[in-house]
Order: sequence, then structure tokens, then C-alpha cells
Amino acid sequence: MRRQITGFSNPTVKYLRSLRDKKHRKRERRFLAEGLRLLTDARECGHLPQQLVMAMERDPHPLLDALEDAVIAAGGDVIETSADILAKITGKDNPQAVAGVFAEFDTTLAALDRSAAPIWLVAQALRDPGNLGTMLRTGDAVGAGGLILIDDCADPFSVEAVRASMGAVFTQRIAQVRWEDFLPWLRTGPGQLVAASLRDAVPYRGAPYAAPCFILVGNESRGLPEEYELACDLRVTMPMRGRADSLNAAVAGAVLAYEVLASLEG
Amino acid sequence: MRRQITGFSNPTVKYLRSLRDKKHRKRERRFLAEGLRLLTDARECGHLPQQLVMAMERDPHPLLDALEDAVIAAGGDVIETSADILAKITGKDNPQAVAGVFAEFDTTLAALDRSAAPIWLVAQALRDPGNLGTMLRTGDAVGAGGLILIDDCADPFSVEAVRASMGAVFTQRIAQVRWEDFLPWLRTGPGQLVAASLRDAVPYRGAPYAAPCFILVGNESRGLPEEYELACDLRVTMPMRGRADSLNAAVAGAVLAYEVLASLEG
Repeated sequence: MRRQITGFSNPTVKYLRSLRDKKHRKRERRFLAEGLRLLTDARECGHLPQQLVMAMERDPHPLLDALEDAVIAAGGDVIETSADILAKITGKDNPQAVAGVFAEFDTTLAALDRSAAPIWLVAQALRDPGNLGTMLRTGDAVGAGGLILIDDCADPFSVEAVRASMGAVFTQRIAQVRWEDFLPWLRTGPGQLVAASLRDAVPYRGAPYAAPCFILVGNESRGLPEEYELACDLRVTMPMRGRADSLNAAVAGAVLAYEVLASLEG
Repeated sequence: MRRQITGFSNPTVKYLRSLRDKKHRKRERRFLAEGLRLLTDARECGHLPQQLVMAMERDPHPLLDALEDAVIAAGGDVIETSADILAKITGKDNPQAVAGVFAEFDTTLAALDRSAAPIWLVAQALRDPGNLGTMLRTGDAVGAGGLILIDDCADPFSVEAVRASMGAVFTQRIAQVRWEDFLPWLRTGPGQLVAASLRDAVPYRGAPYAAPCFILVGNESRGLPEEYELACDLRVTMPMRGRADSLNAAVAGAVLAYEVLASLEG
């Protein structure tokens, strides 16, 4: 349905704004994604927003037309509003902005088919939404199946994580699970758990990676708990030529993921 | 000199706070670094703050004692203040916080010795201070000599970049330069300029890297200008198995840097 909203106090405006807040997002099980490119990626991956919001003053664009048509055809809402109200929703003063409201995906392990891809990224207590989105983006690039979030991680459906994923939030599976549930699940089928570690580790280059390979990255400041490292099938170490003893979490995951990709394909 | 500050309106408090702002930072040619670990890294690399600020209510710590002694011995100031005032300076409500004011480093190309390291990272129009700090951290890890910032990049001396560098701002050389000045400088000596590119590129694995290797990464959203890519000695391509056609800038730089490291050492 197409409709126009002209008042700041309209409940839909309040609802859309509230999705920037994690508490409301979780209650509604909805999230916001912004930008024509991101929304077009979503559409091309088969994900349409339930609501599409844009300014009446916008410039026309064929990709936006396609998006509007698809949303209407699927029974969703296309909402036009003023540039001022749009800025209030998106937090950006850009009348070309466009935002969509999506239903959250199923993030249970049960929904995840490990045989669907040779690589899976796994993050434990990853706190930075930018790092989380970057890992999704890297996962897409290496042909991973998805990102499994262990313990208390940043929200993959936050505006920051969605933005940093550059659309990969729509191509990668996402699971949210406790370690006590992840490990038993992993052991019910094939799957090599690999972590970057200094403990009893082999060089990351040329290590015996095997698909499906689950690459485990730890918290930004504390790294992985010892117990988690010890549960890994393979511990690898990356050169550290300087003073630092660790890499940024998203960087470590990416360097390792590209090494695994080359190894599995080589 | 040791002194105590108890008033919010003290000019030193205003001065320290003002260093969170780029304009003031540039005028003063000073920057803030925060945290005992970061400041200890700095000290061990031979960089001492001109001023060291901490709360009177802090817990004792041997590394903090060592830092205080070194600052006093070098003629700097150790400033004790209330937890409230410290929170105002650091923006964090943590009475264990400690902050130091450092003189900016010389960031001219003239100060850079290309023969000092086999790898140099080069970023063009990198806008995100987190990405910039992450590239410094990666540079430290791969034993790079430093990070050369081309055109208008984020400020490497911002609190965010310094924090993301995890101390590497003190171990890596930093240069800030225009492209028109960088390229002629590069060509006055040995140096292979390498970029990730889709244009006439060879696979990044097994490419003929040569030291000193300058790894060029482009702007987060626009990538590298065509002219810059064409000026490179080597263009390499990384696998992109998904929908995305690019990686996060700091991730791309890191994957490439680890490949160059393995190639040069292998």
C-alpha cells in the first residue's frame, strides 16, 4: 500500500525511529536497513522490506522504482514523507535517503545447513558492530555460509552492523548461540574448528584445513577463553613481527579466511 | 613537575579537553593517548607524554609508577585531578583512566627511510579513524615500516585512531602527503607500488612482490582513482566469491600485507 506521512507525531514515524534502539528492535523482531544500494542488494537476494520509506522530494531512480514495485507487489507498504521527517528516521540529513524495515531472520542453529559452504565464520563475544558487519562482508567475499555469533555479541541487526556488512547481512546466514549449545551441535556432523592462537599452534600458512572449516575469532580485548581454544581441532598462529601480540578481530578472521579459501581450493 | 588540579575551569583542563577536537589538535600539534597499556607501549618505544593526567583516587600500579617517574625525569608534568574532572577530559567515567599528551610526530615524507622495512602500507582518502588505526596495528603485525596517508585521510592522531592502533601509532612511521608529491618521491628510489584492483590484475597469491613493497588501499566507498591504479607497478586481485565486489579497506590491506609478508619471506 502506498501512503504519505506528514506529521512528526505519526505513530509510524515513532515506530521507525524506535528500531534504531536495540530494545525495541528485539521486541518487534524487525530491523532497519538504509540506502538504495543496500536495499537493492537485499531485493536481489530475495529479501524485501515490509515497509519502504523515502522523501517526497526525492530524485527519481530506476532502482528505486523497481524496489517500490516489488514491495507493493509483495503486499508491503511504500511510505512517502517529508525530508525533515525522513531525516528524523534515518538520522541523516539526506533527502535521497531511503530506508526499509525487514523482519529479523531465523538465527537458530537449526536453520543452518553446514554442508552449504566450505567456510563458516564464528565470533565469540564480538562487541563492535562495525567489526561484526565487516566479518559478514568478509564472509560474503570468501564464499562463507554465514557468521555464527557465540555468547554476547553486538547485535547483527543494528544499523551500524548492517551498514558495515555492505549488504552481506542479506547473503550470509547468521546464528546466535551459546557456546554450550554450539559445540555439541558442531560435533553432530563434520566440521573443523580452527582458531588463531599462541597455544600449541602451527603456522597458519599451510596448516591442514578441512571443509567445512569453522574459523573462530575471539573478543576484541580478551581474545578467546582458554577452554574454547582447547576445544578447537586446529590452532594456528600468524606472524607478529612487531610489538603487538594480536590483530583486530575482523582482520584476523579475514586473513585466516583467505588462507583457508586458498588452501581448500589449492 | 607534579601538580594537582581541582577546578573544572582550570585552563589545563580546557586545554586537555580541546585536544579531542581536530582543529585544536592541529593548532597545538599535540594529541591525546589514553590507557595505561597504550602509554606503557609508548614509553617502551621511547615516546613519553609531555603531560600525564590521572585521578587522585586511582589504585596504585607499578606500570603507572614507572610512567610517572619517566615523565618527571624527562621534565614533563604529572597532573593529578578528581575523578570528575578526569571523566570530563577522557570522556569516560573510569577513575583508573590515565591520559597523556604527546607532541605530534614529523609526518613529512622526508622523515621516512624506505629501506628500514620491506613493507609499507599506503592509504588514499581513508576516512574512518577506526580503519586507519587498524591499518597501523596491522602494519606493526607484519613488520611494516609505517603508514603513508595520501590525500585527505582521517586524522591519525585522533583519539579513535590512536585507540584502534593499539599502540602502533608509536611504532609505525606516519606520513601525510598529496599524491602529486608521493609518486615522485616513490620514484626516486626502489619501491614497488601494489594495489588490489580488478583492472588488468594478476591473482594476489603468488604475485611477484618485491621489497620495499608499498601496498596501496583506496577510499572506503570510492576505491582508488583510476589514475592511481594505473601508476601501480603491480595490480592484484583477490577472490570475491559472493555478491560484494570489495572488502573493507583495512581488511583488504591486511590480507594483502600478510600475502606480501609470506611471499617476501618464503
